[in-house]
Amino acid sequence: MKRVIKNGTIVTASDKYVADILIEDEKIKSISDQIDEPEAEIVDASGYYVMPGGIDPHTHMDMPFGGTVTADNFETGTIAAAYGGTTTIIDFCLSDKGKSLKSALEKWHSKSQDKAVIDYGFHLQISEINEDVLNEIPETIEQEGVTSFKVFMAYKGVFQADDEVLFKILVAAKEHGGLVMVHAENGDVINYLTTKALAEGKTDPIYHALTRPPEAEGEATGRAAKLTALADSQLYVVHVTCEEAVEQIAEARSKGFRVYGETCPQYLVLDQSYLEKANFEGGKYVWSPPLREKYNQEVLWNALKSGQLQAIGSDQCSFNFNGQKDLGRDDFTKIPNGGPFVEDRFSLMYSEGVHKGRISIHEFVDMVSTQAAKLFGLFPRKGTIAPGSDADMVLFDPAVERTISAKTHHMNVDYSALEGIKVIGEPVSVFSRGKYVIKDRQFVGRPGMGSYLKCNKFGLKAKDEAKATTLIKNS
Amino acid sequence: MKRVIKNGTIVTASDKYVADILIEDEKIKSISDQIDEPEAEIVDASGYYVMPGGIDPHTHMDMPFGGTVTADNFETGTIAAAYGGTTTIIDFCLSDKGKSLKSALEKWHSKSQDKAVIDYGFHLQISEINEDVLNEIPETIEQEGVTSFKVFMAYKGVFQADDEVLFKILVAAKEHGGLVMVHAENGDVINYLTTKALAEGKTDPIYHALTRPPEAEGEATGRAAKLTALADSQLYVVHVTCEEAVEQIAEARSKGFRVYGETCPQYLVLDQSYLEKANFEGGKYVWSPPLREKYNQEVLWNALKSGQLQAIGSDQCSFNFNGQKDLGRDDFTKIPNGGPFVEDRFSLMYSEGVHKGRISIHEFVDMVSTQAAKLFGLFPRKGTIAPGSDADMVLFDPAVERTISAKTHHMNVDYSALEGIKVIGEPVSVFSRGKYVIKDRQFVGRPGMGSYLKCNKFGLKAKDEAKATTLIKNS
Amino acid sequence: MKRVIKNGTIVTASDKYVADILIEDEKIKSISDQIDEPEAEIVDASGYYVMPGGIDPHTHMDMPFGGTVTADNFETGTIAAAYGGTTTIIDFCLSDKGKSLKSALEKWHSKSQDKAVIDYGFHLQISEINEDVLNEIPETIEQEGVTSFKVFMAYKGVFQADDEVLFKILVAAKEHGGLVMVHAENGDVINYLTTKALAEGKTDPIYHALTRPPEAEGEATGRAAKLTALADSQLYVVHVTCEEAVEQIAEARSKGFRVYGETCPQYLVLDQSYLEKANFEGGKYVWSPPLREKYNQEVLWNALKSGQLQAIGSDQCSFNFNGQKDLGRDDFTKIPNGGPFVEDRFSLMYSEGVHKGRISIHEFVDMVSTQAAKLFGLFPRKGTIAPGSDADMVLFDPAVERTISAKTHHMNVDYSALEGIKVIGEPVSVFSRGKYVIKDRQFVGRPGMGSYLKCNKFGLKAKDEAKATTLIKNS
Amino acid sequence: MKRVIKNGTIVTASDKYVADILIEDEKIKSISDQIDEPEAEIVDASGYYVMPGGIDPHTHMDMPFGGTVTADNFETGTIAAAYGGTTTIIDFCLSDKGKSLKSALEKWHSKSQDKAVIDYGFHLQISEINEDVLNEIPETIEQEGVTSFKVFMAYKGVFQADDEVLFKILVAAKEHGGLVMVHAENGDVINYLTTKALAEGKTDPIYHALTRPPEAEGEATGRAAKLTALADSQLYVVHVTCEEAVEQIAEARSKGFRVYGETCPQYLVLDQSYLEKANFEGGKYVWSPPLREKYNQEVLWNALKSGQLQAIGSDQCSFNFNGQKDLGRDDFTKIPNGGPFVEDRFSLMYSEGVHKGRISIHEFVDMVSTQAAKLFGLFPRKGTIAPGSDADMVLFDPAVERTISAKTHHMNVDYSALEGIKVIGEPVSVFSRGKYVIKDRQFVGRPGMGSYLKCNKFGLKAKDEAKATTLIKNS
Repeated sequence: MKRVIKNGTIVTASDKYVADILIEDEKIKSISDQIDEPEAEIVDASGYYVMPGGIDPHTHMDMPFGGTVTADNFETGTIAAAYGGTTTIIDFCLSDKGKSLKSALEKWHSKSQDKAVIDYGFHLQISEINEDVLNEIPETIEQEGVTSFKVFMAYKGVFQADDEVLFKILVAAKEHGGLVMVHAENGDVINYLTTKALAEGKTDPIYHALTRPPEAEGEATGRAAKLTALADSQLYVVHVTCEEAVEQIAEARSKGFRVYGETCPQYLVLDQSYLEKANFEGGKYVWSPPLREKYNQEVLWNALKSGQLQAIGSDQCSFNFNGQKDLGRDDFTKIPNGGPFVEDRFSLMYSEGVHKGRISIHEFVDMVSTQAAKLFGLFPRKGTIAPGSDADMVLFDPAVERTISAKTHHMNVDYSALEGIKVIGEPVSVFSRGKYVIKDRQFVGRPGMGSYLKCNKFGLKAKDEAKATTLIKNS
Repeated sequence: MKRVIKNGTIVTASDKYVADILIEDEKIKSISDQIDEPEAEIVDASGYYVMPGGIDPHTHMDMPFGGTVTADNFETGTIAAAYGGTTTIIDFCLSDKGKSLKSALEKWHSKSQDKAVIDYGFHLQISEINEDVLNEIPETIEQEGVTSFKVFMAYKGVFQADDEVLFKILVAAKEHGGLVMVHAENGDVINYLTTKALAEGKTDPIYHALTRPPEAEGEATGRAAKLTALADSQLYVVHVTCEEAVEQIAEARSKGFRVYGETCPQYLVLDQSYLEKANFEGGKYVWSPPLREKYNQEVLWNALKSGQLQAIGSDQCSFNFNGQKDLGRDDFTKIPNGGPFVEDRFSLMYSEGVHKGRISIHEFVDMVSTQAAKLFGLFPRKGTIAPGSDADMVLFDPAVERTISAKTHHMNVDYSALEGIKVIGEPVSVFSRGKYVIKDRQFVGRPGMGSYLKCNKFGLKAKDEAKATTLIKNS
Repeated sequence: MKRVIKNGTIVTASDKYVADILIEDEKIKSISDQIDEPEAEIVDASGYYVMPGGIDPHTHMDMPFGGTVTADNFETGTIAAAYGGTTTIIDFCLSDKGKSLKSALEKWHSKSQDKAVIDYGFHLQISEINEDVLNEIPETIEQEGVTSFKVFMAYKGVFQADDEVLFKILVAAKEHGGLVMVHAENGDVINYLTTKALAEGKTDPIYHALTRPPEAEGEATGRAAKLTALADSQLYVVHVTCEEAVEQIAEARSKGFRVYGETCPQYLVLDQSYLEKANFEGGKYVWSPPLREKYNQEVLWNALKSGQLQAIGSDQCSFNFNGQKDLGRDDFTKIPNGGPFVEDRFSLMYSEGVHKGRISIHEFVDMVSTQAAKLFGLFPRKGTIAPGSDADMVLFDPAVERTISAKTHHMNVDYSALEGIKVIGEPVSVFSRGKYVIKDRQFVGRPGMGSYLKCNKFGLKAKDEAKATTLIKNS
Repeated sequence: MKRVIKNGTIVTASDKYVADILIEDEKIKSISDQIDEPEAEIVDASGYYVMPGGIDPHTHMDMPFGGTVTADNFETGTIAAAYGGTTTIIDFCLSDKGKSLKSALEKWHSKSQDKAVIDYGFHLQISEINEDVLNEIPETIEQEGVTSFKVFMAYKGVFQADDEVLFKILVAAKEHGGLVMVHAENGDVINYLTTKALAEGKTDPIYHALTRPPEAEGEATGRAAKLTALADSQLYVVHVTCEEAVEQIAEARSKGFRVYGETCPQYLVLDQSYLEKANFEGGKYVWSPPLREKYNQEVLWNALKSGQLQAIGSDQCSFNFNGQKDLGRDDFTKIPNGGPFVEDRFSLMYSEGVHKGRISIHEFVDMVSTQAAKLFGLFPRKGTIAPGSDADMVLFDPAVERTISAKTHHMNVDYSALEGIKVIGEPVSVFSRGKYVIKDRQFVGRPGMGSYLKCNKFGLKAKDEAKATTLIKNS
């Protein structure tokens, strides 16, 4: 089936122009001043931006955490993502100590297939390294299409890996074409501070923030960056929140090292004071790293604008306020860590970034879509609007004003951490491989229509690129 | 007339894919998986990269300097540029103290029209500020389409402006939508050092470098950046050569200031030792700022890669070795400052950057073309390959190996500063607004086919952008 | 005549111990556990600190400024200094363009001799450099004992020197053993901002601060430091007020350059909000650089503590509120720049520094006395308590609490910028070369008892030091 | 017994003057222009510097390591120290996991008493923290006089503590008045690199350096400094070797944190190339952190000069080349780590520092003696020449030139790592509490004449200082 998107203003990480787009066989076939294709269905995009679908490189769907499981699974989560203009997620697959990486991936495939309504890939979290694990890495990259590996420097006694594990993964990633991701907080310091706070009877949500100070994030970020430099490997720091961490990434980058950083919308619009809300409302804002003092917001915007940070993840990890968050009513360490952001990531960045003049519309597309595709081996299949690419697109109305609310959002969670925030701009229709997922603001897709994406290796060399290009042409 | 570029691998600052391009009425009309247009001329681009034509934001054609005039004028200079894959230059128009800005522009128009074979715009150099000059700036921007203003912090007693002049221009640029450019070297220090060197009988070319130390460039760069921050204005630092200067730009950018930097191919491949060549051969390498110690090359590459520097200019300013450079045989201060680089800028950056794996091919396009278009108000007319844009394109063969030499180059100058350097890749055919300028490595254009480009204001706001988009659509 | 100071707690830049001191012939002869010298006068110092007399390296006595002259001359100013525990001042001698340096010094000698009650030396301000001036510098250093030269980077059109003048003085200082001092503010920027403010009708004192932003100080400080590095010379930055400037000094020092910095008590305890006081009271706090936002106070304390700044000057430059400051009631640029601090410098630093635990008592002595002696060639004659040194000493009661007020101070000026501030500690008795100047809180000296001090060259080498040591022994 | 040191040039961290010194009852009683004390023994110090005896804050005497024990014990080691002008050492007492701190101190007392010829104190190394250990810390500080605690961030599986242990000790130190010392290298990374090197058959001494890269030291130094800042505690980084580490310390200090750094003479005069000496000679230069590339020497000198580093330790830890070092002939990880430097620390710093004009003679005294006394709670008893202080002094001939050699040194080790290096200056006579240890270059003391020193708490507050002063007076 053919479809023509007519008269939209097409926007990519680099370009902006008015043209028609012909979609055929799930892919973009033509972009032209004017396309007259009699048998094609016509979609009128006049007055809309036509942008590459968002790529959210940081979600946790159907994830167990502290005895409970996230409120959103791959079905509800990807429907909400699509409503928000996101057409690809890369979810974190958790592995278990003592079990094979393959078995972890199998579990995650069983969670996602027949559920997802948009395409998805996996990162793989690793917390121990032994011969077996090291031996599985090449296969995971080459055959499973999983090329990014997550290491936790926090959550002592649970996920936390020591520096030698991190270093070994960095070396392996370099050798086999992987990209290492770190949750950068010093878990040892945090362990001390949380234990001490509880011993002193400090149990309110705000202590979650106070026991995870920005210095602990800055320290771990710098450590990971320096180990990466030493290993001549590549690193992606997830959810960067503060000046202390940004400085470390910037320093590494200015020396030419392959260190990349992601921040999340919540760190750009919320701040630490939210955790002080009365009646345990602060618990809604508990995730790690925590929200920071407000001045960090400007630091993060500057870092995005000057290229010190590259990408925006949602860190989607939703828990209901009633029945889940309140497990920690008497002990902040028992509050499930996470918040619901997959739906609003795209619009919030447009509204706060482009509409308010902080970033250009090209920088916006780059950070919510293109960079993730490039870093995680999905480009040019995803992340742009160009002949040969998957027809993953958003028709975005830049004029409409609306208010974010749990009453109207589509995530399966009983509150919104962004309740009441006004945004300018809204995804009107969303296509995944040329098919409508959202049509005129209504979900029209079906569970299972999303496919698993095998990611390419990090840093495909020039020769490989030529080959990849040919493949696209011939596919 | 219609023309279809078939089967090329199209590369932009963001994208890379194989497709056909339809050109009509000087502009790109369609980009498609396959274009069958019976009446169109077919250009086979199989095996070639099809890239936006290079934009060289830093040339000096037909420019008087120290009693002589550059060897290349707008005809020979733009022909050489086209051979090298460049389809737009922005040349520096020099103003005279006591005369109107308008008269300076008129002089530059008379130098360029009927000569240029590719499109061109102007920057305007200013060395004094009085009420008349300040009053002319808005008109220059609004009506003349000249939106960038160059200030020299060096050449004491000739071009050098003091800090108050610089500050006033920064303020005016902010108010009226201009971009200030600086030649950043501390002219006072250099004046002392050159006078002293000559007094001590140090007359060889190497003293040109030794009397213009990198500290003098770093100091002036930091000063300009700080004044820009204070004025909340915008700055473009031309020809950045060294670590001292890069650090200053990076610091300003990380604080969110609108400070941009350009470097030139010569600083990336040559170094200070070239000025020590015997028999006055060192004189071939005399320009300002001078070539630096070799370790700065890696600093500059890292700065380009991490986004601390944005653009590549050639600083084309050619003087013959015999008859011009040798005016300074007995006194290095009499050597005309400048070198011939407009032809090799594009290929050298591809070969040293992309082929050697230092930058991606997208970063290459961005820095040799797209960024200049965006910063100087020519985007999206120039700097990309997209429907609606001017059909300024290069067919680039990435496989061919060749050697740069004065024997084969097309600039009107008797030596090459890059003599003997091997490069991988070559522009095969070059189109300016859809017309061949270079066809199968031969010049087929004619003087005067290049048009003067009015530049848009710096930092066009969202609303203006929407309007501009509509204009493109309707043009 | 002999005198024994008994049972005091002697404190120097390095040491602290209880002992007796024997003074004879203006000098310290012995320091001993117990001194029994029958013919000597006994001074009981039990419960007091016995410290080297303060050295104030930054005063302006009897100085013309903007049509008026400072309220304090060498008599009233040095009496007040002595009350405050200071036994040496180094005053700024202003030179006139077109006249010899020698004539400037003669004028300053005529202002000071027969007036001063404590010893004094001179710095020499230079604003133009020509052959005559350069030729006079060696003689000034060798014969006149003036080894420090002040250059203004601000006060455009009045004192301001350009970078070439500064650089020439740096080179001359290096060659002949001088130390260059700079008032570091970018006078060009300030000239623009003040002109603009006045044109906009902004005439209140607060605009003095707002038109001299910290960025202008940071820029000039960095520039001076970089020129010093390039000249391999030595620099002393007077009255450092802000983070922007401290960072530049710290950076130069960490690279091994001989760059030193001074701050003043006023910048440590007052802030910019004082200039906003109603009824033109803000005019009392007008001096340059201006008071800064409060957070800079902690930056300055940290800089003192970590050795980035070395010395404390008062920048004494007093003008009466009535009759002088109010010349600028309708135009802040007409307010005479300066404030009265020579009397309180020592006590304020003790109280805010040592008493409040910010610095150690040794660091206190070092920065209010010893460092100035060492940097300006007066050590070990001044700045310490050791056999052979001049008996310039303060008996300091660290327990007494008092309140600074114009009602009780001894400066010849009708207000105190520190009115109402409480300090802990008070100089009780003060000796200049063994003679009482202040005895039990009363002035007992006489005008003219202070002598002119010839300063030694900067950076006396090891061999010279040995010789100097011998001279002390034999003198 | 009384003794008068006559006509010497007394030098302290602040002062330099010619005077006589009267010693009585182990202490300095008087310092005077001239002392005539008929019953006293006269020591002629004409032509000599009289300086406070050196304090070496970093020695390992009689220490077990990797199955062997250091070649020097408290007798031979302190005799050598005394020959070299050092009158106090602070040795590292090693604790055992599972045993009490008290038992560790007892063991170290048994090693030292009746052996040492100069006074000595202890630091205490801690590698595990449990309730018992935490409970012992206050007692160790208050009663045992041990106030400094060493934590290893390297030697994984042996001494290495994790970040939580380090943080707990930092907190305890803050609460009880201790100072934390770290060996800052990332042991995890080093463990990986050494294992890999051995697996690849890389067994030569140079691999000791190559598997312990400066980045690993920089990372750990920064981590320790940041944890210290977070704990608002105090830190002393031992044996700083490289730019990466210096930068971290400087940054912490500039923010006002109590972070101090030590370097060692070996890092200032030797470099990494020494480990490449043939015939396993490189093994003589194996210690940790390793010697670095030569450019770091200038970085370290600049850091000392600008106050970024404060003290000089020897890291004395001697092993014979034959029989000990050669245990690692086939495996660099089996080479006992350490070198013999206690004897030459003082002279080397004088010769390379003062004589070569890199530091002043006061800075020299400060870093080889006074600072250690102040940081480790021994001042003013040790570290200066002032009435009331212990008469620990060196008569130093600054003119003599000699050559360091194992043939002439007094350490009990069969090689010198400084063999053949010429130094200017030599300790002629050395006094410990007024008694000769070295007289005219000959040892005249006896084992056991050195006493154990209880150290005071870190950061004695103003009030405590007053009390301490009184005690000295009355003692």
